[in-house]
Amino acid sequence: MSSKTLGEIAALFNLTLEGEPDCIVSGVAPLNRAKGGELTFLSNRKFGKHLDSARASAVLLPSGISTNYSGNRLYSDNPHADFARITALFHPSPKSTGKVHPTASVHSTAQLGVNVEVGANCYLGKGVSVGADSIIGTNTVLEDGVTLGTGCRLYAGTVVYNRVRIGDRVIVHSGAVIGADGFGLAKDGETWLKVPQVGGVVIGDDVEIGANTTIDRGAMDDTVVGSGVKLDNQIQIAHNVVVGANTAIAACVGIAGSAIIGERCTIGGAAVILGHLEVTDDVHITAMSLVTKSIKDPGTYSSGTPLQDNALWHRNFVRFKQLDEMAKKIARLERTLDSTK
Amino acid sequence: MSSKTLGEIAALFNLTLEGEPDCIVSGVAPLNRAKGGELTFLSNRKFGKHLDSARASAVLLPSGISTNYSGNRLYSDNPHADFARITALFHPSPKSTGKVHPTASVHSTAQLGVNVEVGANCYLGKGVSVGADSIIGTNTVLEDGVTLGTGCRLYAGTVVYNRVRIGDRVIVHSGAVIGADGFGLAKDGETWLKVPQVGGVVIGDDVEIGANTTIDRGAMDDTVVGSGVKLDNQIQIAHNVVVGANTAIAACVGIAGSAIIGERCTIGGAAVILGHLEVTDDVHITAMSLVTKSIKDPGTYSSGTPLQDNALWHRNFVRFKQLDEMAKKIARLERTLDSTK
Amino acid sequence: MSSKTLGEIAALFNLTLEGEPDCIVSGVAPLNRAKGGELTFLSNRKFGKHLDSARASAVLLPSGISTNYSGNRLYSDNPHADFARITALFHPSPKSTGKVHPTASVHSTAQLGVNVEVGANCYLGKGVSVGADSIIGTNTVLEDGVTLGTGCRLYAGTVVYNRVRIGDRVIVHSGAVIGADGFGLAKDGETWLKVPQVGGVVIGDDVEIGANTTIDRGAMDDTVVGSGVKLDNQIQIAHNVVVGANTAIAACVGIAGSAIIGERCTIGGAAVILGHLEVTDDVHITAMSLVTKSIKDPGTYSSGTPLQDNALWHRNFVRFKQLDEMAKKIARLERTLDSTK
Repeated sequence: MSSKTLGEIAALFNLTLEGEPDCIVSGVAPLNRAKGGELTFLSNRKFGKHLDSARASAVLLPSGISTNYSGNRLYSDNPHADFARITALFHPSPKSTGKVHPTASVHSTAQLGVNVEVGANCYLGKGVSVGADSIIGTNTVLEDGVTLGTGCRLYAGTVVYNRVRIGDRVIVHSGAVIGADGFGLAKDGETWLKVPQVGGVVIGDDVEIGANTTIDRGAMDDTVVGSGVKLDNQIQIAHNVVVGANTAIAACVGIAGSAIIGERCTIGGAAVILGHLEVTDDVHITAMSLVTKSIKDPGTYSSGTPLQDNALWHRNFVRFKQLDEMAKKIARLERTLDSTK
Repeated sequence: MSSKTLGEIAALFNLTLEGEPDCIVSGVAPLNRAKGGELTFLSNRKFGKHLDSARASAVLLPSGISTNYSGNRLYSDNPHADFARITALFHPSPKSTGKVHPTASVHSTAQLGVNVEVGANCYLGKGVSVGADSIIGTNTVLEDGVTLGTGCRLYAGTVVYNRVRIGDRVIVHSGAVIGADGFGLAKDGETWLKVPQVGGVVIGDDVEIGANTTIDRGAMDDTVVGSGVKLDNQIQIAHNVVVGANTAIAACVGIAGSAIIGERCTIGGAAVILGHLEVTDDVHITAMSLVTKSIKDPGTYSSGTPLQDNALWHRNFVRFKQLDEMAKKIARLERTLDSTK
Repeated sequence: MSSKTLGEIAALFNLTLEGEPDCIVSGVAPLNRAKGGELTFLSNRKFGKHLDSARASAVLLPSGISTNYSGNRLYSDNPHADFARITALFHPSPKSTGKVHPTASVHSTAQLGVNVEVGANCYLGKGVSVGADSIIGTNTVLEDGVTLGTGCRLYAGTVVYNRVRIGDRVIVHSGAVIGADGFGLAKDGETWLKVPQVGGVVIGDDVEIGANTTIDRGAMDDTVVGSGVKLDNQIQIAHNVVVGANTAIAACVGIAGSAIIGERCTIGGAAVILGHLEVTDDVHITAMSLVTKSIKDPGTYSSGTPLQDNALWHRNFVRFKQLDEMAKKIARLERTLDSTK
């Protein structure tokens, strides 16, 4: 693990240093367990009182904070982002070994850029193209015609169906499945007829895709995940969905077919967005909300009911069935009272 | 890619043609981007106004529609299904190569029908049986005693536990796990004792199973998925569930243990059905509904609350805890007003 | 399959036998289809009426039950647990073959205990350590530095990221991903910066992890799953979550980052627990509940709305938006009526 002086770190990330520029740090740790030689940060101003007991060699603080802390301080306008950068300094991403494992099956027509790593038991089909410096993890499958940009990392056990196109610096975690058939069915008497899914999937640059997330291929057009999109684990993106650039989606979200999500949105865990809706840019949807209509205005949206003691909940739960009736009774009471005045 | 004349297509699928029988088409595309040589269809009558600008060589329309469109027209009583059939004509499913990849591990007692394809790094255990023309994708695992019918397609990275029985023409997408242990636990003091899951899984014919969907084996009896059932991605089917024929289930649905779902049902995305319930035939459950009781009558059922601006939602959310109290207040007001009349 | 006399079974599990100690049974089956030579149990007292038609050689009953049944009876204080133990007698877990499949890639520095089985196409990275008698299923990946205790069973296609530590007798089902990066993002202008996830995952002893469940590694500290925890399929455990000992979590649950769940809790299917909350010991959360606040008292908690006929639901659904307004109207009515008295 490398070491840096506080002066070097301040210079690298354009931070203000108050303290010893020659102090050496060689790692990061949370406030409560950082020790000498480590750098920590104040994730939340309300934890400021814990600064006194900090044993870290230096603390990263938000610019402008007032504190009695007298240890080494680095000030940042965006301490969360700068702490991420400093962490990456001490924990760099693994680099490609540039080696193709002898057990990998790589089709003779596949094109590998310079310095591509292909893990054990991988399968790269006909016409697959992988950009320079990418790492294809163990047991990963890239079917015929998949294109993958430069500097990508696919973790073990990723499956990418044929013709999916993935940009540069994309990270895909294990168990993710990209390009499986969309759920296209036509009713045919009592049975369902499969609608061939002949579209593809296009993933932009700098996308991260979580473990066991599924992104289906389009029916005729493509499913599109914009650049800078971050997808957590176990998300379902149905056929022909479009996710706008820099949108972040938490785990277990489901987005139904042909929904269009704007840019810079955030979607909380386990929320569900129905099909054929449009959600505009800069919309924030809280956890477990159900989106049944298009959202035309930026803002924060929610649905759901509060957690309650089970007995109280059950009484209220049952009343929900009478809600419309209750509203009508109130209106009737108001009219009666008005007329008796 | 093959080509067909409109006359051939009309004859194949019993469609009425108005226009040139000798016009050749070689593909399909959506209305807005179909061009010469392509066939398109009107997915929804409300898009009829876009017909004028269509550049497709022919349009598939619902029988009986009145339109000014003067291009080549095919009329169908079920355009959605017929368009699926025409699409399949131009995009046929891949056929088995009939080859077993040299890296596959196939047990000496496994029985492969004629023309079975087994991909790289597959594992077929003791006594496995695979029917003719089936395709076993890369890295797929069929444990001991699995039986698979004819014309199946298992995509890369499917796992089928021991003794699972799968019918004919079944499609299983990547990451699906069929036959894992059900969640059987017996309380034993403060700890949980595992209840051995010794039942199996039986999957009918013409079933499709989505990516990362899980279907657990039964505790003592089998978990059963009827013929013609279509399962989207990331669905959880617990032990001893029975899903009736031709039921279609959207992504992220969870069905708890021993629930019995009827035939021809549809279940919307992320809905949850509790254990030991019965849902009769022809029931439709909308997205994200929670089914806490058996459903005895066909029909459409829902639960959930509407999406709202977060501030408004929060005010209403809090009031949900007072719902029973509100109902009682209304009743009291009604009585008071009655007595003062 | 082995056979036992009822006398042997009674002695093994300390059960009271009424009937023939020499009667031989060689299997278990549910009440309705158990036949001669099989043992069954009464899972629920309300099924007592079915005892008369039972054709099983013996029935396991709760101690103290009064019944007219005259066949062989075993009595237990915990029939559910004892039936599980008897079932395991006839269906013992498979034992390790102690063989490493020739297609497995095991790094020269990996340490395998005695009698470890490693399946086809497995990958065990640098410094991996596997305890005695463990079974590593086909196509499973243990990245560098993973430690696994004794008597574990990882089913086919499990992925364990680097440095994850797993205890003894842990069962992991197919498609589970342990140790993928947590969803750590820092806002950086319009884009998201990845926060390196440098913590680990620590799994205790006697844990079971369901198919396609994901457990992310911590950001700086570890994600912790306590001993005796049972996780069903498709659960998402985010970074830095702590799950207390002997807690059981049903399928499709999502637990957001840094939530702390107590011991002996049960969480129903598809429930969601938001991040940074604390749930104390002995809390039971029902299916599909959303936990938005810490829970400080043991008990049972719920949220959600009842399933209704779609038309009725829609009327009530719309009224939910007026709930706060309705409450205010009621208060106004009460005041008016009070003042008119």
